[in-house]
Amino acid sequence: MHGSQSTKKSIDRRILIKGGKVVNEDCSEMSDVLVEDGKIAAVGADLQVAGEARVIEAAGKLVLPGGIDTHTHMELAFMGTTAVDDFHVGTKAALAGGTTMILDFVIPQKGTSLLEAYETWRNTADPKVCCDYSLHVAVTWWGDKVKKEMQTLVQEKGVNSFKMFMAYKDIFMLQDHELYAAFSQCKDIGAIAQVHAENGDLIAEGVKKMLSLGITGPEGHELCRPEDVEAEATQRAITIAHAVNCPLYVVHVMSKSAAKVVAGARRSGRVVFGEPIAAGLGTDGTHYWHKDWAHAAGFVMGPPLRPDPSTPGYLMDLLANDDLSVTGTDNCTFSVCQKALGKEDFTKIPNGVNGVEDRMSVIWEKGVHSAKMDENRFVAITSSNAAKIFNLYPQKGRIAKGSDADLVIWDPQATRTISAKTHHQAVDYNIFEGMVCHGVPVVTISRGNVVYEHGNLLVEPGHGRFIPRKPFCEFVYKRVHQRDQVAKPCAVKRMPYSGEVIF
Amino acid sequence: MHGSQSTKKSIDRRILIKGGKVVNEDCSEMSDVLVEDGKIAAVGADLQVAGEARVIEAAGKLVLPGGIDTHTHMELAFMGTTAVDDFHVGTKAALAGGTTMILDFVIPQKGTSLLEAYETWRNTADPKVCCDYSLHVAVTWWGDKVKKEMQTLVQEKGVNSFKMFMAYKDIFMLQDHELYAAFSQCKDIGAIAQVHAENGDLIAEGVKKMLSLGITGPEGHELCRPEDVEAEATQRAITIAHAVNCPLYVVHVMSKSAAKVVAGARRSGRVVFGEPIAAGLGTDGTHYWHKDWAHAAGFVMGPPLRPDPSTPGYLMDLLANDDLSVTGTDNCTFSVCQKALGKEDFTKIPNGVNGVEDRMSVIWEKGVHSAKMDENRFVAITSSNAAKIFNLYPQKGRIAKGSDADLVIWDPQATRTISAKTHHQAVDYNIFEGMVCHGVPVVTISRGNVVYEHGNLLVEPGHGRFIPRKPFCEFVYKRVHQRDQVAKPCAVKRMPYSGEVIF
Amino acid sequence: MHGSQSTKKSIDRRILIKGGKVVNEDCSEMSDVLVEDGKIAAVGADLQVAGEARVIEAAGKLVLPGGIDTHTHMELAFMGTTAVDDFHVGTKAALAGGTTMILDFVIPQKGTSLLEAYETWRNTADPKVCCDYSLHVAVTWWGDKVKKEMQTLVQEKGVNSFKMFMAYKDIFMLQDHELYAAFSQCKDIGAIAQVHAENGDLIAEGVKKMLSLGITGPEGHELCRPEDVEAEATQRAITIAHAVNCPLYVVHVMSKSAAKVVAGARRSGRVVFGEPIAAGLGTDGTHYWHKDWAHAAGFVMGPPLRPDPSTPGYLMDLLANDDLSVTGTDNCTFSVCQKALGKEDFTKIPNGVNGVEDRMSVIWEKGVHSAKMDENRFVAITSSNAAKIFNLYPQKGRIAKGSDADLVIWDPQATRTISAKTHHQAVDYNIFEGMVCHGVPVVTISRGNVVYEHGNLLVEPGHGRFIPRKPFCEFVYKRVHQRDQVAKPCAVKRMPYSGEVIF
Amino acid sequence: MHGSQSTKKSIDRRILIKGGKVVNEDCSEMSDVLVEDGKIAAVGADLQVAGEARVIEAAGKLVLPGGIDTHTHMELAFMGTTAVDDFHVGTKAALAGGTTMILDFVIPQKGTSLLEAYETWRNTADPKVCCDYSLHVAVTWWGDKVKKEMQTLVQEKGVNSFKMFMAYKDIFMLQDHELYAAFSQCKDIGAIAQVHAENGDLIAEGVKKMLSLGITGPEGHELCRPEDVEAEATQRAITIAHAVNCPLYVVHVMSKSAAKVVAGARRSGRVVFGEPIAAGLGTDGTHYWHKDWAHAAGFVMGPPLRPDPSTPGYLMDLLANDDLSVTGTDNCTFSVCQKALGKEDFTKIPNGVNGVEDRMSVIWEKGVHSAKMDENRFVAITSSNAAKIFNLYPQKGRIAKGSDADLVIWDPQATRTISAKTHHQAVDYNIFEGMVCHGVPVVTISRGNVVYEHGNLLVEPGHGRFIPRKPFCEFVYKRVHQRDQVAKPCAVKRMPYSGEVIF
Repeated sequence: MHGSQSTKKSIDRRILIKGGKVVNEDCSEMSDVLVEDGKIAAVGADLQVAGEARVIEAAGKLVLPGGIDTHTHMELAFMGTTAVDDFHVGTKAALAGGTTMILDFVIPQKGTSLLEAYETWRNTADPKVCCDYSLHVAVTWWGDKVKKEMQTLVQEKGVNSFKMFMAYKDIFMLQDHELYAAFSQCKDIGAIAQVHAENGDLIAEGVKKMLSLGITGPEGHELCRPEDVEAEATQRAITIAHAVNCPLYVVHVMSKSAAKVVAGARRSGRVVFGEPIAAGLGTDGTHYWHKDWAHAAGFVMGPPLRPDPSTPGYLMDLLANDDLSVTGTDNCTFSVCQKALGKEDFTKIPNGVNGVEDRMSVIWEKGVHSAKMDENRFVAITSSNAAKIFNLYPQKGRIAKGSDADLVIWDPQATRTISAKTHHQAVDYNIFEGMVCHGVPVVTISRGNVVYEHGNLLVEPGHGRFIPRKPFCEFVYKRVHQRDQVAKPCAVKRMPYSGEVIF
Repeated sequence: MHGSQSTKKSIDRRILIKGGKVVNEDCSEMSDVLVEDGKIAAVGADLQVAGEARVIEAAGKLVLPGGIDTHTHMELAFMGTTAVDDFHVGTKAALAGGTTMILDFVIPQKGTSLLEAYETWRNTADPKVCCDYSLHVAVTWWGDKVKKEMQTLVQEKGVNSFKMFMAYKDIFMLQDHELYAAFSQCKDIGAIAQVHAENGDLIAEGVKKMLSLGITGPEGHELCRPEDVEAEATQRAITIAHAVNCPLYVVHVMSKSAAKVVAGARRSGRVVFGEPIAAGLGTDGTHYWHKDWAHAAGFVMGPPLRPDPSTPGYLMDLLANDDLSVTGTDNCTFSVCQKALGKEDFTKIPNGVNGVEDRMSVIWEKGVHSAKMDENRFVAITSSNAAKIFNLYPQKGRIAKGSDADLVIWDPQATRTISAKTHHQAVDYNIFEGMVCHGVPVVTISRGNVVYEHGNLLVEPGHGRFIPRKPFCEFVYKRVHQRDQVAKPCAVKRMPYSGEVIF
Repeated sequence: MHGSQSTKKSIDRRILIKGGKVVNEDCSEMSDVLVEDGKIAAVGADLQVAGEARVIEAAGKLVLPGGIDTHTHMELAFMGTTAVDDFHVGTKAALAGGTTMILDFVIPQKGTSLLEAYETWRNTADPKVCCDYSLHVAVTWWGDKVKKEMQTLVQEKGVNSFKMFMAYKDIFMLQDHELYAAFSQCKDIGAIAQVHAENGDLIAEGVKKMLSLGITGPEGHELCRPEDVEAEATQRAITIAHAVNCPLYVVHVMSKSAAKVVAGARRSGRVVFGEPIAAGLGTDGTHYWHKDWAHAAGFVMGPPLRPDPSTPGYLMDLLANDDLSVTGTDNCTFSVCQKALGKEDFTKIPNGVNGVEDRMSVIWEKGVHSAKMDENRFVAITSSNAAKIFNLYPQKGRIAKGSDADLVIWDPQATRTISAKTHHQAVDYNIFEGMVCHGVPVVTISRGNVVYEHGNLLVEPGHGRFIPRKPFCEFVYKRVHQRDQVAKPCAVKRMPYSGEVIF
Repeated sequence: MHGSQSTKKSIDRRILIKGGKVVNEDCSEMSDVLVEDGKIAAVGADLQVAGEARVIEAAGKLVLPGGIDTHTHMELAFMGTTAVDDFHVGTKAALAGGTTMILDFVIPQKGTSLLEAYETWRNTADPKVCCDYSLHVAVTWWGDKVKKEMQTLVQEKGVNSFKMFMAYKDIFMLQDHELYAAFSQCKDIGAIAQVHAENGDLIAEGVKKMLSLGITGPEGHELCRPEDVEAEATQRAITIAHAVNCPLYVVHVMSKSAAKVVAGARRSGRVVFGEPIAAGLGTDGTHYWHKDWAHAAGFVMGPPLRPDPSTPGYLMDLLANDDLSVTGTDNCTFSVCQKALGKEDFTKIPNGVNGVEDRMSVIWEKGVHSAKMDENRFVAITSSNAAKIFNLYPQKGRIAKGSDADLVIWDPQATRTISAKTHHQAVDYNIFEGMVCHGVPVVTISRGNVVYEHGNLLVEPGHGRFIPRKPFCEFVYKRVHQRDQVAKPCAVKRMPYSGEVIF
C-alpha cells in the first residue's frame, strides 16, 4: 500500500484505487475505482484517469463499501453519567475500524419534545462528527404532540425510523396500546418502527428478586432479565406490528431465542428485521460471572449478553442466512470508574459497551474467516442492508458509479489484536480485549477523502455530514403496501338474520 | 348389553361389569369390575360376588374411566343473556356422552368478592348437578382482597385453580404486572394458574378496525383476533409463569401457533399444560364465513376457531404426543335467538359453543378411530390427566380399587350421528351437526349408579357432588419445588471494587 | 409501448429503453437502458444516444433481467416417447414468457459416454435454440471413465454442474457410496453437485404395493412416493455432500418436508441450494385425484406434486426468505396421447409437465402480487441467483453495463389468463389452465434483439448460443474453500499408550 | 432400613415393605407392599400379614419398580476380544444399581443361523444370570432363511424384537431394500424393528479420511462419524418403517440431531421409540479429545458420544417430554488393556462402555434431582415404558398386585460417588468416575428375593430367568393396525381413457 504519502487531509480531489477486488453484496470483481469530488466516478477494469489523481494500490486487497453502524449512543447522558466516546472520538474510532457512517439515537426525556431533542442532538453532533451520520428518534412517551412531532421529523428533518422501548419501566417503556398507536403512526408517515424488546414488567420484578436474594453483582443484571424475557417481547412487538402492517426493526437481538422468533416471523412473511450487535457476535455473557468486578461490569448492557456460549455462533449463522439482516454495536461506553457507580448494586452500573471501532473486524473473524459467510454477505450485513432498510441505498452501501465515496481497503489475510491499549476509542477497556482478528482495514475513505491510512487518522471534527433519509423506503414498504392492497379483509355478503332475538 | 332393566335409579348397591376390556391410561386388560357403594371394589379376572349384584355384560366393549370435562360454563350470565344449558341439563347431557365430572368456572364481576361469587356458584350448582363437579375461580381484578380470598378458597373451599384473563380489556383483563402478582400468589398457596391467552389490547384495536371496514358479521370475530394474537399471549403467560416458577395451565388452546408455543415450552422444561377443546378438535373456523348468518354465529367463541383446516388434526397430533395434556369443551351455549343479539354487530354475539355431551365421541372419532392415538391415550386426555393436574387422581381418572365408580361402557365399533335433534343439551343447534362418530357410550355409571343406559337418562338433579381439591398437587408441584431447590440463583463471591468512582 | 414497428428481427444494433423502472435484485431505479451489439452499454437517467437507435418506451413498466430457467428437458426421449417441446419451440415459448436462457440436462444412458451424450445434445440444440442455453450433465452410473469424462466436460466443454439420481432404481440411481464418489469428483473439479432426491428403493416398493392394491391411476404415482420419500433423500444427499464438503443443489424441491430439510441445512451452514419449480409453486397434487384420467395424468411428474394444498404457498415463503434460492420448471412435455401410454398403469405415464413459458408469470402472481416478496426478490429467484450459482453472473442475471442484453419489459398491472389455447408450447394442455396472472411480459430482448413484442415472436432457430460455464464459481466455492482451510480436523497430540495390551 | 439381617439369600417367602412411598409411572402413594412367592401380593395402606414375613422398613424411602435395561451386550465377542462383564457379573452389578432385568442382544455372524445364535446365547446366559433377562435378536444379513427363522423365534422362542444395522459396512450392515424386507417381516410376525442408525457408507469413507489425515487417536472415532451421519440414518429408518407401517425402535440415540428426528417423527404420528443410554445422558464426547489415550479410549462406542456439551441435557429434556421413551446402556465393557488393541488405530479400539450398574443413579441425578422430570416419569423411562414396548407390562414395570416382585427401595436424598474402585462390574474403569449422584438403591428385590442390601449382593448365578415375550404387543401395534384399517390407499374410480395413444 503506497502512493502519495500526504499527511494532510482532504487534498485529493481524485483518487484512483487500482488493482483491488471490489466487493459488493452481489459479487466481487477485480476492478479499479475512481473517486471524484466525494463520489464514485467509475468502477471498471484498467481505468485511465485524465489529469491528476492520487493512486492507491490495492492489489491483493479488497475494496469494500464503508461500514454502517446502525446503532450508537455517542456521549449519551444516561444513568447519572455520560458516555465517554463523544461524536468526535467515537466517529474517528469508527473510521479507524472501517466504518464510515453511524446511526445514532435521539432519546428525549419522557414528556419532552422530540423535535427539541432532535435539535439538541444535531447541535452536538454536527460540529464533531468525523464520518457521516444519521439519526433515529426514540418515542419515550405517547401523546398527540409526539404523534405530530414524528410527522414533522419525517417530513422536515430527515428521520425515517423511531425506536420504542418495551423495557425501562416508568422511564421509557410504552404499553401495548401505545406501541400499537406508535406503530400505526410510523406506518402512516412511512417510517420504520424499531423496538428495544424486553418485558419491562418482568425486569422490574426480576430486579427485586435478585436484590432480595442478595445478588448485587453484575451477574444479577443477566439473572433478572434472562433471554425468554427478550424473546417474549420480541414476539409481542412482531405481533403488534403485524396487526398494524407496519415494518419492524428489532434492535440488538441478543439471544438465540429472540433470534429464533425473528427468523420464524420472517418465514411467515412478517416484514421484520433483526439487528445483532458486535458484542453479541464476538463475546458472551459468561463474563458477568467473572471474579473481577470491574471486568464483569464492563460487559453490562441491556439486553444483556447471554451466558449460553453457543449464542454468538448461532446469531452469526442467522446473519449468514438472512434471518437476521444487519449489524450495529449499541456503542455506549463508560469507563471503569463510571461503571463503578454500580459497585454495590448492579442496577446502577451504567449500561453500555464498546463496538463502533471493532465491529467490522470482529464480524470478519467470526463470520468470514470462520467460513460461515463469504465476503459478499459480509458487505450485506455490515453495510448494504443497513443502507437499504434506512433508505440510503445505493448512495451508501454499494460501490457503484454515483454512490458516495465511502470505502475501505481491507486486508483479509492480515490480523490485528484488539486491545484497549491500541484502540482509538475514549473508553479505558475493551470487551474484545485480546481477540485476534483476521480482516484489517488498511485505508478508509470517507466522502472521497482518505481519513485513515498507515494507522493514522487524517480527519477533522465536522468532516462528516448529517444524512437525511426519506420515508416510505421501497425496500421496506413495497411488500407492506402490496399487502394493504391484496390482504384487506372483506365482509361476507349475507341475507340479514330474520329470526327472533331473545335475551 | 342386558341385565336387570330397572328404570328406577340408584337402587343397585353393587354392580358387576363382566367381560369388558378395562382401559386405563397405562394399559388395557380383560377384567371384571365390581362396584360397591359408589366405589370400585375390585378389578380382576372372573370376579365372583357374594351376595346380590346387578350384572352388566360388557363383552366386546371397553370399560373407561368416566370423562372429565375441564372447562364448562353452565348457565353463565354473559354478554347480556344467560347460557341455556344449566347445571341440570348440562350435566345430564354430559352423562349421556360419557362424561361423569365437570369443572366449571366461577367468574366474579370486576371488583367483587371471589368468595361471594364462589358461594353463588355453589348455591346454584349443588341442587342441580347430575354428575360430580368442581370449581375453578376466575381472578378478574387484582388487589389485596383478591389475594386473601384466593388463600381462603384454597384452604377452606376446595379450589386449587384460578383463571386469569389476558383478553376482555376493561372487563376481566389483567396487566402483566398483575399476572405476575396473581401467579405468585398461586405459587404461594399451591394452586395452578390458568390463563385465557389472547392479547386484549390487540383485540380491542382489531374490533375497531373490522367495524371501520364494514365487517359486522361473524367472520369479523376471527379477523379481529387472528391466531398470532393468541400465540403471543400464550408465550407471554408462559414467560411470566416461568419467572415466578408457577405451574401454568392454558385453557382452550385453539390454534396451531399457540399449541406450538406450549409444546416448545414444555420441551424447554416449563411446567405448562395445554387444553384444547372439543370444538377445536372437531370443527374449524371456516364456518365463520358461512353464508347463513345463524350458522356462522353459532360457532362464535373466544378464542375463535381457526380458518386453517389443518388445525384440528394438528391439535390432535399434539394431544397424542403429550404436547397438549387434557381436553375440555368451554361449553357455554346460547340458542340461535340469543346469538341474534349480535345480528348487526359481531361483538354482540354471545360467545360460546356446545361440547359437553359430544366431547368423548368427537375425540374418539378424530383421535382413536383415525389412529392418531390408542384407547389408553384417549383415557389419559379425556380423564386421567385432568384428574392428575387438578389433584383428583386416582380418586377420579382411573379404574382401580378404591377409586370413585365413575365409569363408561364404550362401544368402539358402534357409530352415532351427532345432531341437535337428538342431543340432550338445551341449546337448539350443534356445532358438530351431522358428524358420524365411532365410539358410543352405552352405559354411564356415576358414583356407582347407572345413570345412562339404553339411551335413557336415569338421574335426578343433585345426584352429583361438589368435589373439593387440595393444593400443592404433586403431579404439578414436584418439579416446581425441586427447581426452587436446585435452580436458585446465587451471587458470585468477589473482592469489592476498590478503584475510583467518577460520574 | 411503441417505437419502430419492425416485424423483421435482429435489425436493431442499438436499442434505447426509456422511462422504465430497472429492477435488479438489490434495488429498483428509474433508468434508461442502452443496448448495443447484444450487450448493455449503459444504464442511467436520461441517456442520450448519439446515432441511430430504436427507442422503446417503458414508462409505467418494469425492466427486468431475462428469466433463467434452471431446469428443462427439451425433446427428451423418455419412457418410450419423446417430449414434444423441442429446443426450437420450447425456447421460443420461453421467450414469450420472459425467459431468455435455459439450462437443459444431458442424460446419458447407463453405461454410456457422458461426452458423447453431451455432443449429441449440443448437436441437437445448437441449430434450434432461440434463446441462450447451457447444459448440466447427468451422472447415471459410476466408474473411472465417468470420472474422467466429468473432468473433460468441466475443463473443455463449459459444464460446471452434474446431476445424480437417487431415484429411478436400476436405470439412473446411484448408491450412497457412488454419490460420495461423484460428489468428491465434483468438489475436485470445481463443479456443483445436483441431485434428484427421492429414495428409489422405497419408490420401487411403493409401486409394487400400489399395483397390488389395484391402484393403477395417476393417484398411484403420488401414493407410491409420498413426500417423506423425498425429504429422506434430501437429508441424505445433504449429509453426504457435507461429508465431502461439496456444494449441493437440490433440483425440483416439491414438498414442504423436503424444503424444510434444505432450509434447516442452510441454517446449519451447509452450502446447499434448493430449486422449486413453477409447477410446485403454481398448482398442487390434488389433481392426481381428478376424475378425468387425462386431466390427472397431465400432472404426473417426479417427484410428484403434493396433495397438501398449502405446499405452493409454503415453498414461496421459503423462496421469499432465501431458504430456497432459484426456480426452474422441469419442463418436459408430453401431450395427452403420449400420457395415455400409461392409461392402464401409472408407472407407464411419461413423467413431465410444462412450465418454461409460464414460470415468470406464475411466480409473479403467487409471489409478488400476493405480497410474499417484492420485485427485487423476484429477479433474484427467477434470474440472478441462477446466474450466480452456475457462474454466469453478472453476464446474466443483472442489468448493468457490460452484461448481456437479455431483458424483459414487464407490465406488473396487466393480467393474462394462461391457457393451452394461447400458449406457445407444443404440448396440447397446460397445468396452469385458467390461472389469471398479474405480471405480463410485454417485450423480450435476447442478446440485444427484440425477439418478442406485441404478442409476436420474432426469432429464428439458432439465434441462441451455448453459454459455457467455468468451474470453481466463487459464489458457491468461497465458503467451501474457506472451510477446507479452517475446519480441517486435526489429531490430538498425546504420549503413546504404554500399558499392557491383552486380547 | 433394618429388619431381619439375613446374609443367606432367598429364604423369605414373604416380604412386607412398610411405610414407603410407592412410585408408579402414573402416581406415587404412601403404601405398603406385600411380596409373596416372587409376586406382588398386595399394595395398600397398613397391610396386615397373617403368618411369617420379613418386614423391611421403607419410611422416607421410595419403592420403585426394578429398572429394566433395554440394551446390553454381556460377554460379547467383538473386535477380536470379549466383553469382560459376563452374564454373571454384569447382572449382579445391575442388581446393585437397582436394575432387575436386562435385554441383551443375540448377534449372529453374517450368514449364520439366527436360531443357533439364539440357542448359544441362552446356553451361555441361563446358568449365569442373576436377574431376569430377555433377548433381542440381530438381523445381520438377509435371506429366506433369516425370514423363516425370525418367525420361529417369535412363535417359539419368546423374541419380539429384531435389530438391524445401518452401520458396520460389510459386516452387519443391511441395504435399504433389505431393511424394507426385514421391517416387513417384523410387521407380519408382530415384532418391533430396532435399528442401529448410522450411515455405514459415510463412516467407511470417514475412517479413510481421518487415517489419511494422520488422525489415529480416539478423537478420530467421533470425527469419522459425526452426528449428522446418525441423524441421516435415523430419518431414513423412520421413512422406511413408515412405508411398511412397521413400529420402529431406535437404539442408542446419541445426538441432539438424531433425537430431533425422532421427536419430529412422533409428532407426525410415526410409531417410533427412541432409546438414549446412560452414557449419553451422563457424559459427553469431549473425552475423546482427552490428552490421556486410555482415558479417551475408554469412551469409544458406536455411535459415539457427542462433543456438544449440551447433548446430555437435551436428551434428558426429550425423555422428560416423551419424545424419547426409554433408557438402556449399551453396556459392553472392555478393560483398558483391551481398549489398547487400538492404541495405534482408533478403528481397532473395541467399542463399548459401562452403564448397567449406574444407569438408575445417573438418570436420577441428571433427570430428577435436576428437576427436569419427577419420580414418576423416572419410573416410566427406566422401567415401565420398556415393559410396555417389549410386551412385558404389567408383569414388569409396575408395582401392582400380580406383578413380578422386582423392586428397588430407593433413597432420593442419599448420594453416592461413582467409581471403578467401588463398582461391581468387572471392567477396570468407569466412564462416570467421580460423579456424585443423588438417588441410591438401598435394597433390591428380584423375583421376590432380597438380592442386594446394605451394600451386599446376595444372589447366585442362575437366579434370573429368561422372560419370553409375545408378539403383537398392544402398546405398539394398536395404532399400527388401526392405520392399516383406516389409512389404506384406494383407487379413484374413473371412466377409462378413450382417446388416442401415440408414442
